Amino acid sequence: MSEILQGAAVIGQSGGPTVVINQSLVGFIEAAKEAADITQVLGARHGIAGMMKGDLVDLGQETAATLAGVAQTPAAALGSVRMKPKAEDIAVAIETFQKHNIRYFFYIGGNDTAETANIVEQQTRAMGYTMRCFHIPKTIDNDLRVTDHCPGYGSAARFVAHAFQGDDRDNRSLPGVKINVVMGRHAGWLTAASALGRRSEADGPHLIYLPERTFRPEDFVAKVEETYQRLGRCIVAVSEGIHDEAGKPFLQVYAERAGSALAGMKDSHGNIQLSGTGALGDALAGLVKEHMGSIRVRADTFGYLQRSFPADASPVDCAEAREVGRQAVLAATSGEYASGSIALKREEGAEYRCTTFVTSLDSVAKHTKDMPDEFLAGEEGVSQAFLDYATPLAGNIQAMTDLARVKV
Amino acid sequence: MSEILQGAAVIGQSGGPTVVINQSLVGFIEAAKEAADITQVLGARHGIAGMMKGDLVDLGQETAATLAGVAQTPAAALGSVRMKPKAEDIAVAIETFQKHNIRYFFYIGGNDTAETANIVEQQTRAMGYTMRCFHIPKTIDNDLRVTDHCPGYGSAARFVAHAFQGDDRDNRSLPGVKINVVMGRHAGWLTAASALGRRSEADGPHLIYLPERTFRPEDFVAKVEETYQRLGRCIVAVSEGIHDEAGKPFLQVYAERAGSALAGMKDSHGNIQLSGTGALGDALAGLVKEHMGSIRVRADTFGYLQRSFPADASPVDCAEAREVGRQAVLAATSGEYASGSIALKREEGAEYRCTTFVTSLDSVAKHTKDMPDEFLAGEEGVSQAFLDYATPLAGNIQAMTDLARVKV
Repeated sequence: MSEILQGAAVIGQSGGPTVVINQSLVGFIEAAKEAADITQVLGARHGIAGMMKGDLVDLGQETAATLAGVAQTPAAALGSVRMKPKAEDIAVAIETFQKHNIRYFFYIGGNDTAETANIVEQQTRAMGYTMRCFHIPKTIDNDLRVTDHCPGYGSAARFVAHAFQGDDRDNRSLPGVKINVVMGRHAGWLTAASALGRRSEADGPHLIYLPERTFRPEDFVAKVEETYQRLGRCIVAVSEGIHDEAGKPFLQVYAERAGSALAGMKDSHGNIQLSGTGALGDALAGLVKEHMGSIRVRADTFGYLQRSFPADASPVDCAEAREVGRQAVLAATSGEYASGSIALKREEGAEYRCTTFVTSLDSVAKHTKDMPDEFLAGEEGVSQAFLDYATPLAGNIQAMTDLARVKV
Repeated sequence: MSEILQGAAVIGQSGGPTVVINQSLVGFIEAAKEAADITQVLGARHGIAGMMKGDLVDLGQETAATLAGVAQTPAAALGSVRMKPKAEDIAVAIETFQKHNIRYFFYIGGNDTAETANIVEQQTRAMGYTMRCFHIPKTIDNDLRVTDHCPGYGSAARFVAHAFQGDDRDNRSLPGVKINVVMGRHAGWLTAASALGRRSEADGPHLIYLPERTFRPEDFVAKVEETYQRLGRCIVAVSEGIHDEAGKPFLQVYAERAGSALAGMKDSHGNIQLSGTGALGDALAGLVKEHMGSIRVRADTFGYLQRSFPADASPVDCAEAREVGRQAVLAATSGEYASGSIALKREEGAEYRCTTFVTSLDSVAKHTKDMPDEFLAGEEGVSQAFLDYATPLAGNIQAMTDLARVKV
C-alpha cells in the first residue's frame, strides 16, 4: 500500500492530560502543515466527541507564536475526553470525516486511546471509507506496551522525584512518618520515580509500595515502625493502585472493613475513586497511628499536580513528545502504513538516545505494561536497573546537599 | 550601646521549613565568618532544643561548595523544632552559651521564633549574661508584622500560582469542579497567590476562600453551582484555615456535625490537624456532591510540597532570604542593637526593590498579620492591589497559552 491519499487530517486528545501532551499536538501541526498530501489541518474539541459533533477547529491558522506557547502549556489544548466509542458512534463521526474529506486520523493518548484509533480504523474500513489512523502515545502512567517509555512519563517522574526530595528534607527537619500517595492505578512506574532523587540509604522514600506487589497492611505498618525505629523517621511512597491478593484496591478493602461511606465513592467508570481525594493517604496514616500510637504521622496525595505542574517539565520528555507528534505525520503520509502507533526505541550506547518506529495499533491497544520484576527490589523497593532506565527520562535530578555538620 | 562584644555566634532554625530557609542560613554563615567580633560560627541542631543539649556543629568548617548546595536545598539543614521555651529552658541553654562564650544568638523562623528570641534575650539579660539576640524572618504564611513580606513566601506563592495554572488547564481538558486546599491556618496570603497566574475571567481559580472571611458552607455550594452553570467548570482555592463566624475551623464544624472520627484528629498543639491530611478537601468535595449531584468533583490538598518543592523557587525570594541572613550579622555586630528582627521595606518606584531594616523583636513576636481589606475583593476574591503586591515576590509567572481555535 503505497498509494497516494490526499485529504484533510484531524487530531484529537484523549484521556488524562499530561504536561507535554501539547508538545505532541504542536509537533503534529508543524509536520502536517508541511505534508504535501494533507490539505487541511483540523483539531477536534474533546477528542472523538468533537468528531461526532463536528466540533472542529482549523489548526492551520494558528500562528507560530501561539504554537510555541501552547507547546509549553499543560493539559489538552483541544480539550480531552474519556469515551470508548462504539461502532454506531464511528458511523456518526464518519459523516464529519466525509464532509471535510478527512483522510488522516490522529489520536493522542494512552492504551484506551489506541484502542479507539483501532476501532475507528476498523469501522471506517468496514464502511469502505479509506482513512489512515494513527495513535500518538501519551501517559504519565508509562504503561503502554512495545514502546520503551511514554511521552508524559518523564515530566511526571521528574515532578515526583523532586517532590520526594523536598519532602524528604522537610521530614528531616521535623521528623515523623510521612506517606505520599502517587498516581498509577495499575502500574507502579510513577510511584517508582519517587526514588530518582535518592543518593544514600538515609534518603527517602524508605519504603515504596507498588501495584505490582500485593499490599498487606500488617506488613506495611511493621515496616514503617521498623524504619522509624532505625532512622527516627520514615518516608513512604504509595501508589494509589495498591491492592490485596485478589486485586481489590486497598482503599475499598479498608472502607468496607470500616463500614465507611468511602465504599460508595465511585468514579464514572464504577471504580472506587482514587484520584482527586486524600482518602487513601488518610486511611494509611490512620493505620500507622493505630499501630504506633502518638507519633507524628502525615499524608499527602500529590494529585493532579503530577500531570499538570507547568514549571518543571523534563526537557527530554518535551523533545520526545514533540517528536512523536511529528513522526506520526511522517508515518501516515509515507504510504507505508494504513495505521499504527509511534513507539520509542532506546538505542545502545552510554549516552541516552531514543529513536521512533511504527508499531501496530493492536500491539498497543487495550492491555497495559506493568513494571518488570527486574525493576523491583524486594517487597518495598526499586532496583538499580529501574533507576538506570528512568533517570534519563526525568532529566537531571540534582542531589540535595547536606551540611558536613562537624560536631563541636 | 556601641560597646564591642566578642564571642561565638550560634544560629538555629525553627518552625515549618521553607524552600529558601537555608539561603538565610548560608547568608548568615558567610557574613558571620567575615565578622571581626565573631570568633566562631556555630549551628544548633533542631533549634533551641540543640542549644539546651549542647548539640552544636561548627559551621565555620563548611566548604563554599557545600554552602552553595545547601542554599538550594529546601528545609532546615540544621533541623527544625516546634518548641516555645520557658525560663527554665533558657537557664539550661545558657550553660551552653557560657561554655562556648556564645555572645550572638540568631534564630530563623516565624513569629513564634521571634518570641523565642525575645525570651532568650530577656532571660539572658536577667541572668546578667550579655548576648545579642536576632530573629531572621522566614515563613510561607507571610504573616509577620512590620516587614513588607516574609522570605519563604515568594517561593511558596510561586508554587501555588503554577499549581493552579496547571490544574486550571487540566480542568479545561476534563471539566468539573476542582477544589484545591492551600496552606495557611490563620492568614490567606498563600491561598491568595492562587490568583497570580490568572490572565482572564475564564482562568481559575474562580472562587478563593480565605480565613480573613467567614466561611459559610451554604454560600460556598451556591457559588460553586453558579460558576459551574456559567463556565461549565469551577476551580476553587481554599485556605486550610477557613472557619465559621466564631472562628472554629470549618473541618471541625463539619466533623462534629457528621459525628466523624475526624473530630479527634488533633495535632501536637491540640488544634485540629489541617496539614498532612486530605480531610478538608474531601469534606468540601462531599458538600458539593451532596448539593449538585453526579457531576465530576475532585479535591487535592497541595500539602507539604508548597513549602518544600525544590525545583521552582522564586529567584527574588532566594536573594532576599540570603540577604536577611547576612543583614542579621551586620546588625548584630554593628554595636547599634542589642536585639532585633530583620524586616524588608519596599522602596518607591516602578521597579520592585526591597531594602532591609532592623525592627524590635517585640514588634514581630506573638501576633500575626492578616491580609488587609484592600487586598480582598468581595467574599471570594483578591484585588488588583494584592496582585501588584505579590507578583514581584513570586517572580515571573508566565501566562498559559490558548489555541486561537478558529471554527471550521
